[in-house]
Amino acid sequence: MTTICVPSEEEAQLVGRRDGLEVLVWDGEGEPPAGVERIEFLVPNYPASKISDDALGRMGALRVVQLLSAGVEPWLGRVPAGAVLCSGRGVHGASTAELAVAGAVSLLRRLPEFAAHQAEHQWVKHRTDDFDGRRVLILGAGDIGTRVATALGAFGAEVTLVGRTARAGVAAIDELPGLLPDAQVVVLALPATPETHRLVDAKFLAALPDQAILVNVARGTVVDTAALLTELTARRLHAFLDVTDPEPLPSDHPLWSAPNLIITPHVGGGTLDWMRRGYRLVREQLQRYEAGEPLQNVVADGF
Amino acid sequence: MTTICVPSEEEAQLVGRRDGLEVLVWDGEGEPPAGVERIEFLVPNYPASKISDDALGRMGALRVVQLLSAGVEPWLGRVPAGAVLCSGRGVHGASTAELAVAGAVSLLRRLPEFAAHQAEHQWVKHRTDDFDGRRVLILGAGDIGTRVATALGAFGAEVTLVGRTARAGVAAIDELPGLLPDAQVVVLALPATPETHRLVDAKFLAALPDQAILVNVARGTVVDTAALLTELTARRLHAFLDVTDPEPLPSDHPLWSAPNLIITPHVGGGTLDWMRRGYRLVREQLQRYEAGEPLQNVVADGF
Repeated sequence: MTTICVPSEEEAQLVGRRDGLEVLVWDGEGEPPAGVERIEFLVPNYPASKISDDALGRMGALRVVQLLSAGVEPWLGRVPAGAVLCSGRGVHGASTAELAVAGAVSLLRRLPEFAAHQAEHQWVKHRTDDFDGRRVLILGAGDIGTRVATALGAFGAEVTLVGRTARAGVAAIDELPGLLPDAQVVVLALPATPETHRLVDAKFLAALPDQAILVNVARGTVVDTAALLTELTARRLHAFLDVTDPEPLPSDHPLWSAPNLIITPHVGGGTLDWMRRGYRLVREQLQRYEAGEPLQNVVADGF
Repeated sequence: MTTICVPSEEEAQLVGRRDGLEVLVWDGEGEPPAGVERIEFLVPNYPASKISDDALGRMGALRVVQLLSAGVEPWLGRVPAGAVLCSGRGVHGASTAELAVAGAVSLLRRLPEFAAHQAEHQWVKHRTDDFDGRRVLILGAGDIGTRVATALGAFGAEVTLVGRTARAGVAAIDELPGLLPDAQVVVLALPATPETHRLVDAKFLAALPDQAILVNVARGTVVDTAALLTELTARRLHAFLDVTDPEPLPSDHPLWSAPNLIITPHVGGGTLDWMRRGYRLVREQLQRYEAGEPLQNVVADGF
């Protein structure tokens, strides 16, 4: 008998009840369910779990914490000894990549100006830049970054992927100082870790050429908001942000009024179909766990 | 000595003057230039040439008409015997593909609603569809269509390319009746020919499932505007149109007010960099012509 705990009855049904599997439902609020001490396989809420350290401490049988998000930062250092942390890599990757690409093209092709003309029923052409031959730096060479690279490559962009360490087709993050001055577009698709916290600070932004575009579909805390606001207000850079710091962005925050900025409210993942994709992963992982096979997407603690 | 005629002095400089090459400049307005009878290689204006049949008749030495557009329809049947028509395939393909993809993602992810929230400084999430697992039909398997296919494939879409005839990886256009009922997104990237004129009529649109998305980056005349307007007004379909019929769209045209529609004013090509790319092609073609080698992008008349 394996015991799995998921956040809702809808999700329990996506796991599927069957002989040899006990499915507990708990959303992390209030008291843990009866049988908490039997939970081996825990699926916390997407996007933000409320499961306390106290509750985790009562899960003495815990072996797997399977997240449904690509980002794992709230769980780093929290998973008890004897259990592994697995990311939801792949669940939201495609939808996040398509949003990043649409945001970047919207800025480069100045689509908001065409939308304003449409609202006025005016057919007004203007010439814009395009991606053919444009130099793009993608920070983060995981699922999201490689999908963005493929799409922008199809539009003729010269793409450089950047990861923590250099490998085939991927530059190392310590090469950034040499790469930024040539980058006309920078896409952030890397995990939020202590190393990437405010990686994009005033110095990073100052190194970019005039009229460069910053796209953030990673986490808001990767960017120094005040430094970006200064560059936007000076009309030197353009940005598409699906994530912000703080988040949600309060309605009186000055970022809302910055020029050459498109904001979406952290909707890269979490589309209508994410749950179906998420529980396809959960079922695969559960099957591997039950068969004693290695799990996918295991996060080395301290990533 | 070869004589080439281009529409502007800027373009003459991109061709480059040199020994053995006579470069005439004429934009097609008024009288043809002195030496019209020597023109072998003609580059008409992008996007719309005003060169008359009368002027063409005076170009007795004409061997090549090199267009700078992917579409060739205004020139079909006009090129004198002994001359070939070459398209500008590749010049605008990447920029047109990126616009098609951005338009499709904007509709699927309902980005105009997020833009409205941004204008009101409101962080309001909503769940939307995405391309992962979505069935996409791309009509036109040329430069634009294959680029769109690669990008949407990177977002997890199940893409079917459709061409005039079936070949590896491409379905034939006469298979459409069986393909349309399953197509959640249809991208038009085919040439305007007598066969494709109003191909997308009321019957075509009626065959699409509810809430399907139509993207037109080909030519406005491929779509029956009135039939599309009916479907949009009924809120049964969504559309992104970079091209319309008529074009430019008059400010009192009802299409401007249709729901679930994004319009851009035929700006898929013609970006800031198109001329540099266009004259890279012209120089290559001229070199081939002078060397007696086969030209690229030759259009069989009657295409």
